[in-house]
Amino acid sequence: MKSTLSVSVEFGDTDPAATVFYPNFFRWFDASTWRLFFNAGLTLDVLKDDFGLIGAPIVDARSKFIKPLFFGDSIEIVSLITNWKRKTFDVMHEVRKDGELYAEGRETRCIVAPSRDDPKDFHAVTIPDEIKRRLIESR
Amino acid sequence: MKSTLSVSVEFGDTDPAATVFYPNFFRWFDASTWRLFFNAGLTLDVLKDDFGLIGAPIVDARSKFIKPLFFGDSIEIVSLITNWKRKTFDVMHEVRKDGELYAEGRETRCIVAPSRDDPKDFHAVTIPDEIKRRLIESR
Amino acid sequence: MKSTLSVSVEFGDTDPAATVFYPNFFRWFDASTWRLFFNAGLTLDVLKDDFGLIGAPIVDARSKFIKPLFFGDSIEIVSLITNWKRKTFDVMHEVRKDGELYAEGRETRCIVAPSRDDPKDFHAVTIPDEIKRRLIESR
Amino acid sequence: MKSTLSVSVEFGDTDPAATVFYPNFFRWFDASTWRLFFNAGLTLDVLKDDFGLIGAPIVDARSKFIKPLFFGDSIEIVSLITNWKRKTFDVMHEVRKDGELYAEGRETRCIVAPSRDDPKDFHAVTIPDEIKRRLIESR
Repeated sequence: MKSTLSVSVEFGDTDPAATVFYPNFFRWFDASTWRLFFNAGLTLDVLKDDFGLIGAPIVDARSKFIKPLFFGDSIEIVSLITNWKRKTFDVMHEVRKDGELYAEGRETRCIVAPSRDDPKDFHAVTIPDEIKRRLIESR
Repeated sequence: MKSTLSVSVEFGDTDPAATVFYPNFFRWFDASTWRLFFNAGLTLDVLKDDFGLIGAPIVDARSKFIKPLFFGDSIEIVSLITNWKRKTFDVMHEVRKDGELYAEGRETRCIVAPSRDDPKDFHAVTIPDEIKRRLIESR
Repeated sequence: MKSTLSVSVEFGDTDPAATVFYPNFFRWFDASTWRLFFNAGLTLDVLKDDFGLIGAPIVDARSKFIKPLFFGDSIEIVSLITNWKRKTFDVMHEVRKDGELYAEGRETRCIVAPSRDDPKDFHAVTIPDEIKRRLIESR
Repeated sequence: MKSTLSVSVEFGDTDPAATVFYPNFFRWFDASTWRLFFNAGLTLDVLKDDFGLIGAPIVDARSKFIKPLFFGDSIEIVSLITNWKRKTFDVMHEVRKDGELYAEGRETRCIVAPSRDDPKDFHAVTIPDEIKRRLIESR
């Protein structure tokens, strides 16, 4: 239930201060969380076809920014699901360069199913055991 | 020391679930914080030329996501500086549609000056009184 | 069939050269094309419910970049549909600041309907007269 | 003078149609062009310190979009400098998945040096032979 995503900091990820524009960290956190799901065989299609679910939307996101990153830096996003509740779970993210910690994030997410009447409407469900099991066992 | 940024949720801001891809909220928070600075006459040029400062990088960012937003939604980011410490300050952000709260964020930022030897090096300074005064008095 | 989208160039739109990171121009072109559709009453929901269509994906996009734009600039994206073919149409975009031209783009798009067997499959259709009529008459 | 950039299409790169939001292709083109520069030892620091140059801003960009890409796709951006003029050069980009062509782009760029009086002012220079040589010989 841990994954590592390698990322190159690109020119377009940085801002006039030459450091990473901070919303990109959350973009990488999201990508890394999906990597956990993919490693567990849980693609959007599988979520939909096998479980009748839409996705795992964000409930709360946070990051502490410790050191600046620059264009050309090679980093790793190390992600781990840490906290299972009935309807939510937490994903911890560490951003590391050469082993050192540059940022530390946490996402809280839920799992949602479509509601009946309105295609734009969905609701959080009790996290299915099978999804939890797959995410815990995958590596 | 409060500002309101009007934003239209665009097609490209949303994801396959048709809702806003969450890092965009932080993009809007950043824009809204800069609006506070601009309203106080504190552009990047003024920070540099009048104060010898580089910018106001992020130290910590957080958001709670309450209701989903969709392409075509007209929203407001209402932002307010709330918590002055010696070297950091907090900016609270509310994302509202038709008056209702859709997300609630908080950024902690510092103010940095360049360090001598390395152009990539900078350090947080005690927030200058004049900058604090301008941000408090502006509206 | 012409629309004007006002945009503020934000800190996060710019790169270490302090000028706009160029893919953002295409982001604005896309937003401005959707504005043309919205002004004509053609939201994603209307396209789907009234016409059985999915959207108007890009076929070809181009931009010439004439002058650099910086954080804090207020610009306008002036967009116009210029060239109707059976299955495609062109949208011309001018990026102006204080009336002056900063960039000039052109998108070629088609209109697509879902194909039967595969939800990921869709095909370009002959552009319905009613859609063309609405886009031409709206302003 | 050819480089290949591997990219995973992430959730956040796609839009409500589930396909890649097209400005991201240009983001990848930009990253791939910089890869060519890095492979030739031409980082932003080298450009500045050894050549007195600021960067290689875009003059014109274009892409043809052939087939849609989806979340989870693994693609390659194959890039090649093709057309040297006195002050500009072209970079051709092919986006391939499993060998097949999904998009085809072309960027025209120049090389710029700072102008004297205004830090926001810069001008295109005759491309230095040494830069050209390095880009041609690198692989």
